[in-house]
Amino acid sequence: MSKKLPKREDGFSSWYTQVVNKAGLADYGPVKGTMVIKPYGFQIWENIKEIFDKMIKETGHVNAYFPLFIPKSFLAREAEHIEGFAKECAIVTHTKLKSDGDNGIIVDPDSKLEEELIVRPTSETIIWSMYKKWIQSYRDLPILINQWANVVRWEMRTRLFLRTSEFLWQEGHTAHATKEEAQKETLDILELYKSLAENYLAIPVITGIKTEAEKFAGAERTYCIEAMMGDKKALQAGTSHNLGQNFAKAFDVKYQTKDNKEELVWATSWGVSTRLIGAIILTHGDDKGLRLPPKIAPIQVVIIPIYKSDEQKSLVKQYLVEIITNLESLGIRIYQDWTDNTPGYKFNNWEMKGVPLRLEVGPRDVENNNIVLARRDIDGKLFLSKEVTIKKIPELLNEIQNNLFSQALEFRDSNTHQASNFDELKKVIKEGGFARCGWDGKASTETLIKEETKATIRCIPLDEKPENLKCVFTGTPAKHEVIFAKAY
Amino acid sequence: MSKKLPKREDGFSSWYTQVVNKAGLADYGPVKGTMVIKPYGFQIWENIKEIFDKMIKETGHVNAYFPLFIPKSFLAREAEHIEGFAKECAIVTHTKLKSDGDNGIIVDPDSKLEEELIVRPTSETIIWSMYKKWIQSYRDLPILINQWANVVRWEMRTRLFLRTSEFLWQEGHTAHATKEEAQKETLDILELYKSLAENYLAIPVITGIKTEAEKFAGAERTYCIEAMMGDKKALQAGTSHNLGQNFAKAFDVKYQTKDNKEELVWATSWGVSTRLIGAIILTHGDDKGLRLPPKIAPIQVVIIPIYKSDEQKSLVKQYLVEIITNLESLGIRIYQDWTDNTPGYKFNNWEMKGVPLRLEVGPRDVENNNIVLARRDIDGKLFLSKEVTIKKIPELLNEIQNNLFSQALEFRDSNTHQASNFDELKKVIKEGGFARCGWDGKASTETLIKEETKATIRCIPLDEKPENLKCVFTGTPAKHEVIFAKAY
Repeated sequence: MSKKLPKREDGFSSWYTQVVNKAGLADYGPVKGTMVIKPYGFQIWENIKEIFDKMIKETGHVNAYFPLFIPKSFLAREAEHIEGFAKECAIVTHTKLKSDGDNGIIVDPDSKLEEELIVRPTSETIIWSMYKKWIQSYRDLPILINQWANVVRWEMRTRLFLRTSEFLWQEGHTAHATKEEAQKETLDILELYKSLAENYLAIPVITGIKTEAEKFAGAERTYCIEAMMGDKKALQAGTSHNLGQNFAKAFDVKYQTKDNKEELVWATSWGVSTRLIGAIILTHGDDKGLRLPPKIAPIQVVIIPIYKSDEQKSLVKQYLVEIITNLESLGIRIYQDWTDNTPGYKFNNWEMKGVPLRLEVGPRDVENNNIVLARRDIDGKLFLSKEVTIKKIPELLNEIQNNLFSQALEFRDSNTHQASNFDELKKVIKEGGFARCGWDGKASTETLIKEETKATIRCIPLDEKPENLKCVFTGTPAKHEVIFAKAY
Repeated sequence: MSKKLPKREDGFSSWYTQVVNKAGLADYGPVKGTMVIKPYGFQIWENIKEIFDKMIKETGHVNAYFPLFIPKSFLAREAEHIEGFAKECAIVTHTKLKSDGDNGIIVDPDSKLEEELIVRPTSETIIWSMYKKWIQSYRDLPILINQWANVVRWEMRTRLFLRTSEFLWQEGHTAHATKEEAQKETLDILELYKSLAENYLAIPVITGIKTEAEKFAGAERTYCIEAMMGDKKALQAGTSHNLGQNFAKAFDVKYQTKDNKEELVWATSWGVSTRLIGAIILTHGDDKGLRLPPKIAPIQVVIIPIYKSDEQKSLVKQYLVEIITNLESLGIRIYQDWTDNTPGYKFNNWEMKGVPLRLEVGPRDVENNNIVLARRDIDGKLFLSKEVTIKKIPELLNEIQNNLFSQALEFRDSNTHQASNFDELKKVIKEGGFARCGWDGKASTETLIKEETKATIRCIPLDEKPENLKCVFTGTPAKHEVIFAKAY
């Protein structure tokens, strides 16, 4: 906490890095691009996990665990899939180390594997090789399996939470008897993702479909939730893929229908990752540091006792008993900071860590039966009686949750603009924000725009209205309404 | 469910494999020795995880996540540690695949890593490389971190849950200012492991300390919980290590004491894994399959409706509403089997899957306001009124939990024998079971006994009474009382 946090406007990227560091969320590991998720950051992930795990279980999904290692030949079975992941694989080739005869340790060449193994970048191939064994008849369908796991993608340019060589995620992999059922699952999950983002992370998102150029390697259709970060750039926060029969074909997974025919199985896959923590920081953070939505905050209320003598300390301590008992009985996650640091240091520290609500109690507050409350989402302090405080805290947490969402929504909406021609599009992209506009549906147009503006089509929003639009680039009638933006 | 389960006495090993398969717990993955944990097996793991996670959090521990990949040089820093793991490593050497110009995919030789990476077999080295950054002063101590993760040990002879190339576990890694504090932590965790095993998994365990020959590679002292399986062999179910200052030395982790001195930090590490699921199967399983302790059973009560017509079906369905509502409100995990299979098939299937309590309801039961109950831990059926059933189920689940523990305890105790000379020891080992006896404390004696009997010292029990014992092999005064057994 020695150096001051830079202002966001003076360098958003350096601000981000320092918030991650100073709030104690994560650290780089010794291997380039790897991440250590520190306890405070990991508690955010645990809270997200608990919420989403409940959502998918309530909708009939179950968890399982599939192996980390994928035989090279499996990954290669689906052409687009291998194309998409070939350049970023961690490849296991040997299984033993030995002494070099001197003081060093070398890889034992005799332990070379017959077939190299790929550390999963995603698990479609290994899972479908198992579904091949598990699926015979329509009675075996649907399979609605999810796994919480680590995956590895050998990225060159990395940033904590946003892009790291290894990250944590959930990956759902479902198998269905019909095309319609797979499509419904893809969209149902997309709605769960939207609910997770908006109702828990307080991040407004646009649901949409990716263009061919941006879709998942091996999918028929990729749906996504896209959010606007505090620097007006877009972040893809979750994806849900309709895989069609691509993986069923690659692994020859057929089932016997009710009327005794053989059909290929239909598939979906979907995932959200620790990237969501990056999205929370980038959406809600301010010049004082992190701001956490109460529903996923490891600490919802921090209590700062203020005292100058042992006598005052015990006075404050006693005064706090009732409020702490009450908050704990409500299941509110609280933390009391009795360290030797100064109150000023403590205020800054817990603001940096994004705790939604701070209570301050000193001898004078005890005397007046008062408590001082400071909300992380707005400036200023509240002075309430002890009794009112106890009653009001759940309500305040709720207000903070909603207000963070409203602030983010207002920010996104005020930075989203219609662009009716290429100059307007370029202006929006230059100034930052989302440009909604018509697109002729051609990959070549998409590429030309990207080359000139560095912006990509984030998605075709599900609520698109392309009817009276013209393509922002070619001026021909638009096939789709799309959102262009620079992205993480 | 086509082939019948072999009796345990006709081949315990084949019985085990078939229970894992027929109960739907796990499957082998495509890479030799890897395991797919199927949803039913994974739910057991989730229940165990939830229980133990709560235990460690209540004792002040927090979760975090450290990277999967360990630089080769890190693993090599602690001499015993590398010695212990060198022969069973998965080694990552490259990061890209490419086309071979024909139709194949090959490893791109240009993507060779400068330093090879080891897929973590355990995380001491990578964690202590981070602790080096995080620990400066006594104020930074203790660090009480745990992680839930996958680890890889390239095993040649594998068996599902018991020994697989990849498995899931928790690994605690703590850092302390004093030797005493580290020792206390090691033993506190051992007690938590004992409580997890006995009070939740219903597996009686002996707490003890490993001999030098059996201790963890890099530890000063390894404590363990040892259990007796249904074939009278021992299974190490969890270990807690006092690492002394070994890893602090290897990674040069020092802290400034209150009086401004520099000291090396003291460490512990401890883990339990998906092996516990193997322990549950091997401890409680019988000739009908799995038997699960209610506290960790994915389904605690299975309900089998019995009917021959649609009219009977709706009669039974209606009759069940009250009982289901009641059980759900009590938080009891229930499952209703309305599939088209015969009642007989269903009984066998849910017995195989180890569900603690089965309710059967047919039209005659409806007429008589009755329910038929079958406990998985004892033979016979109970016939109770609907009202009594509702009231009695939580109590019955409790009884089943306790009875499974009692049965296992009785089995272990009746197969544990004192051996006062080598002939007696050999007899115990030959007939199966634990032999408690004196040992002179010499590694050579331990080796000679192992060579002749295939039994190892499972542990020096914490409640040893070596005072009047003689070494079972040499006849000289015993240094320790130990437990010999064949082990998994």
